[in-house]
Amino acid sequence: MLDGDKRALSRLMTYVDNRHEDLISIMSDVVDHAKGAWRIGVTGPPGSGKSTLVDKLIGIYRSEGLKVGVVAIDPSSPFTGGAVLGDRIRMMDHGGDDGVFIRSLGSRGSHGGLSRATRDVVLLMDAFGFDVILIETVGVGQTELDIMAVADTTVVVLVPESGDTIQTMKAGLMEIADVFVVNKADREGADRIYAELASLSQLFSHVQIPVFKTEAIHKKGIEELVLELKKLKTKKSSKHFKNLLVEETLDVFLSELATHVTQELSTKGKFKKQYTALTAKHKNPYRCAHDLIKFFLRRLHGKTNH
Amino acid sequence: MLDGDKRALSRLMTYVDNRHEDLISIMSDVVDHAKGAWRIGVTGPPGSGKSTLVDKLIGIYRSEGLKVGVVAIDPSSPFTGGAVLGDRIRMMDHGGDDGVFIRSLGSRGSHGGLSRATRDVVLLMDAFGFDVILIETVGVGQTELDIMAVADTTVVVLVPESGDTIQTMKAGLMEIADVFVVNKADREGADRIYAELASLSQLFSHVQIPVFKTEAIHKKGIEELVLELKKLKTKKSSKHFKNLLVEETLDVFLSELATHVTQELSTKGKFKKQYTALTAKHKNPYRCAHDLIKFFLRRLHGKTNH
Repeated sequence: MLDGDKRALSRLMTYVDNRHEDLISIMSDVVDHAKGAWRIGVTGPPGSGKSTLVDKLIGIYRSEGLKVGVVAIDPSSPFTGGAVLGDRIRMMDHGGDDGVFIRSLGSRGSHGGLSRATRDVVLLMDAFGFDVILIETVGVGQTELDIMAVADTTVVVLVPESGDTIQTMKAGLMEIADVFVVNKADREGADRIYAELASLSQLFSHVQIPVFKTEAIHKKGIEELVLELKKLKTKKSSKHFKNLLVEETLDVFLSELATHVTQELSTKGKFKKQYTALTAKHKNPYRCAHDLIKFFLRRLHGKTNH
Repeated sequence: MLDGDKRALSRLMTYVDNRHEDLISIMSDVVDHAKGAWRIGVTGPPGSGKSTLVDKLIGIYRSEGLKVGVVAIDPSSPFTGGAVLGDRIRMMDHGGDDGVFIRSLGSRGSHGGLSRATRDVVLLMDAFGFDVILIETVGVGQTELDIMAVADTTVVVLVPESGDTIQTMKAGLMEIADVFVVNKADREGADRIYAELASLSQLFSHVQIPVFKTEAIHKKGIEELVLELKKLKTKKSSKHFKNLLVEETLDVFLSELATHVTQELSTKGKFKKQYTALTAKHKNPYRCAHDLIKFFLRRLHGKTNH
């Protein structure tokens, strides 16, 4: 993969999908080769035109000679590997461009799995040599906000009809957005939403969050947005790396621990035996889990008679 | 709590909020006292009038002499204990009614935490003696769908403007909805959405999912909805208990394990020592996590020289 083999990159991404047992050890090496790509998040409610915007951003960055990776995430979809979003994206302009690589991720069911998988895929793209990584997710719920934490800069895309979304999510939106975009700005109500965002940003945020009006489909307002993103890039740089090591270690560790322990419980050996015995004995999930935790902690602390 | 002391119930719910160290052992006893309350989920996008609908449902069930618990969940809010939704709900009609108990839950940041906390709170309400438990959540993202898995019957509330939401979420919506409600049905577009839901349900679902038009604020259509919910109650009964024991055990266990292990890593002792040594040595979160996993697994399998 480090030699620029895209099939190797794809294969490693499949390892991420399956939480392959060697994944964590491979990712250790990948981190050493990460070059610090610029990670731009694009999120917003369904129908706000995020994909079109991402498409235009790809075009501009490509014209500047930058290589662009795209992670398209749909938390509502159980499909992975391009089944849903991939189809949509393949229809766009950059399918045949060798400097563009697109990967779709869908919900994997496991707790926090999608945000973990996004981090891994972004790191793979970074180590592979993409200069800009665009992370697109549908929706503005908690899952999407968690995922966006991986980005250096996050663009929240809204439309003139997004008044309700803004009201419901205001604190969350202000926390995550570095830039607001009012897309489809030729529609009625664009000015009202624009003003609403500007005044909310004064109320809720330490810094004034810039608001842009765009019509992505007509390429209107995109150049201005790109200029602003460049400004923000210089400003933020090191912010995201503070405390990252300790937090990331815990995050990777807990996710791996859950995988390993689930495996232990489902395949042969003393843990599965204990698990089966307990569910048969108790018929009470909390009691089973309680006894199972005691069993694990006793072993962890070396209080066993093996 | 089992004697009907609401302050004890509230205190136990605070234990859920804090993941109190005795929680799992308390919940073991609580499960033994669960009576099998009827759990009705109500979800839908912001502004669809879910709270008004819930308010009217409370009114009807109360008039039938049933005791009603309400869990109001806002995955976008970091607040708990009623700071956000509570305020909204306290303004409604049932604040002074002793047969109604309302609890708000907000995002707790931890992976899967909100759906775990919802299950715990619902079980507490069940053991306390509420006959009907209404679970209301804002939004229709993955987090909300996970949360709704705890309900016996789920009502998805939409409005005539929800066309985009339906298109984006269709598979997820069909999977989770037992009943669709088109609320604010006096608005333009209600008939189109109604037809769209009916035809989607034919395409995606094994059973025809009933669709109701309501104007919750004028109490229109609510009685019909309540009748349908009663029909569904008789139909579904045992479906949700299949495999529940094993799945729930694993869910409770993994969430407790994460809590315990995070604690071990942050307080005195050999695990913290190892954690600190590794982050100092590696400066690579995956490598740290990898070594930490190895350390844990070695101890779990008794391969230590203690």
